[in-house]
Amino acid sequence: MSRLPVAIDAMGGDRHPGPEVEAAIAVAQEDVPVLLVGDRPRVEAALAVAREQLEVDGALPIAVRHCAEAITMDDPPAAAVRAKKGASMPVCFDLVLAGEASSVVSAGNSGAMLACGLFKYKRIKGVDRPAIVTTFPTLRGSCCLLDMGANVDLRALNFVQFAVMGARYAAFEHDKERPLVGILSNGTEDSKGTPLTRAAHELLGAHASPDFDYAGYVEGRAVFEGKVDVVVTDGFTGNVALKMVEGTAHALGVFLRRGIEQSPLSRMGAAMMRTAFDEVKRRVHPDNYGGAPLLGVNGVAVICHGSSSAVALANGTRAAHRFAQRNVGPELAASLDRHAAVIAAAKQRD
Amino acid sequence: MSRLPVAIDAMGGDRHPGPEVEAAIAVAQEDVPVLLVGDRPRVEAALAVAREQLEVDGALPIAVRHCAEAITMDDPPAAAVRAKKGASMPVCFDLVLAGEASSVVSAGNSGAMLACGLFKYKRIKGVDRPAIVTTFPTLRGSCCLLDMGANVDLRALNFVQFAVMGARYAAFEHDKERPLVGILSNGTEDSKGTPLTRAAHELLGAHASPDFDYAGYVEGRAVFEGKVDVVVTDGFTGNVALKMVEGTAHALGVFLRRGIEQSPLSRMGAAMMRTAFDEVKRRVHPDNYGGAPLLGVNGVAVICHGSSSAVALANGTRAAHRFAQRNVGPELAASLDRHAAVIAAAKQRD
Repeated sequence: MSRLPVAIDAMGGDRHPGPEVEAAIAVAQEDVPVLLVGDRPRVEAALAVAREQLEVDGALPIAVRHCAEAITMDDPPAAAVRAKKGASMPVCFDLVLAGEASSVVSAGNSGAMLACGLFKYKRIKGVDRPAIVTTFPTLRGSCCLLDMGANVDLRALNFVQFAVMGARYAAFEHDKERPLVGILSNGTEDSKGTPLTRAAHELLGAHASPDFDYAGYVEGRAVFEGKVDVVVTDGFTGNVALKMVEGTAHALGVFLRRGIEQSPLSRMGAAMMRTAFDEVKRRVHPDNYGGAPLLGVNGVAVICHGSSSAVALANGTRAAHRFAQRNVGPELAASLDRHAAVIAAAKQRD
Repeated sequence: MSRLPVAIDAMGGDRHPGPEVEAAIAVAQEDVPVLLVGDRPRVEAALAVAREQLEVDGALPIAVRHCAEAITMDDPPAAAVRAKKGASMPVCFDLVLAGEASSVVSAGNSGAMLACGLFKYKRIKGVDRPAIVTTFPTLRGSCCLLDMGANVDLRALNFVQFAVMGARYAAFEHDKERPLVGILSNGTEDSKGTPLTRAAHELLGAHASPDFDYAGYVEGRAVFEGKVDVVVTDGFTGNVALKMVEGTAHALGVFLRRGIEQSPLSRMGAAMMRTAFDEVKRRVHPDNYGGAPLLGVNGVAVICHGSSSAVALANGTRAAHRFAQRNVGPELAASLDRHAAVIAAAKQRD
């Protein structure tokens, strides 16, 4: 097992470096080595504060790499990665390339993470566009969705590759031996969807896969009932849909709290239900779903939400460490090779 | 006030004619006249059963128009409306055109409802594409979203017209004097979105409206926090997003029930919270949001979900009756006239 540390971008998240440093301590206590990349004085001060607050004594496998510059959320991704070569995020990728880190985790600019993945790691052979894959809970377990934001303008070829990559991801990350893959659509009939989804739907319907089963079009209800293991969509639709899901969950929580506050009986009932509420929160909270890996590049990069808590970042770091052990790239390339026929058909069609 | 009845398609919904007939009785008891359009023997039998079950005596303003044919959910919309001229849905529209009904409500094939609206009512002057508008609850009240499924392939011109129509709708249906309109996107920065959303975003940003304020791009969290009154999107994204929202709400309910079942204390707590739970359910249940009107045609048509309950259909019928009283068409046309400059700019751009 690799003892290389996970490089954590300590200048990424909205409230950096606090959550990044706490996440580093949490995973280091589980013997996952980490390398915090950021402004040394700030990172070390935050480390000292967090160690005291968390009452952590003794040596931990945490190192700090100084780096004063940062890519911000407002920076134009590709230009920023080119211009700010010494910023914490690209430096994390450079550390992987130099053999000093196993993988990268950042809660920073997700477009810049994609750009770093493309420029530094390069694409896996056979992948035209990498995708960001996210996992969310369903009534039967979990489901992964890609792309959740890397690509807005896609072709059927990309959908086919996303299906292949998503299926491999569901196999190794969620233990689904032969995953069921669906395309997100506005109805299940063949006539539904956009010209893009219809082209991808026809291609996946016409070519049986050696690695997964194709379920056709899926809608929201079926997705949350766990009827598929992988949902394929473009990055605009995927991102909009997931943020609407987050908004819904948040609003329902507030509605319920308001309802509870309206009577002493409800308040007492809610207190008695605390365990049940906590269990639901634990199950559905995005913090517990380990960040969103970038699939399709020669290296491990896990993207966390800008507002990530220490819990979310720790889960993202665990995921990065796990993928780095697994060496996923060759598996994805081999699976894409096994799908040469449908990929060739997609290329001819686009 | 018009005493014309609302034409209810009694062969539309998945479980017709039961919910349609019960909805008719509910609104007729409030003195809203209805005309049930469908297979007379089945409709009259269902009426007799429902009257007995609901213990309704005496005369009600309910009439039945016989019509044996139906458009099914699987029928290709435009072709079916052309071929099945005697089906219940197009007959409802014919009754409005003949001055025998004020408006149409159906839980049938929504594509066919759109086709009927286009072929029978025709578009309002100045509208290139009608849109289906839906209302959902937010933390501050309610918000409407269009398009929720009528149009998959759009231009910036359509987005601009949707913004204008949606704002008028929010004004008369939700009493928002000067609605705040946003475009659904994968981020709030100007660089986000698709080429289509960016074009619409620039147009609405550059031309101040006499009727509404433009809030820019919005994401799911802001939508449910009630930061805008109107959300504009294409029919594919809108439909996918809303079905993901429904799926989320359903899954959260199941997770919570599972949590409650795990201990007697939770079960007791849940019983004490019944009023709070019922209040949340009432607030967020789609049944209580009155169907989705088709905006942009010369007549009133309200589209209900295929699985609509009697409560949902009754709310849809009340909405249809209300719009028919209001005579919305000229208001929309006048508002579109007031936006001639931005519409001309959009046409030049597309």
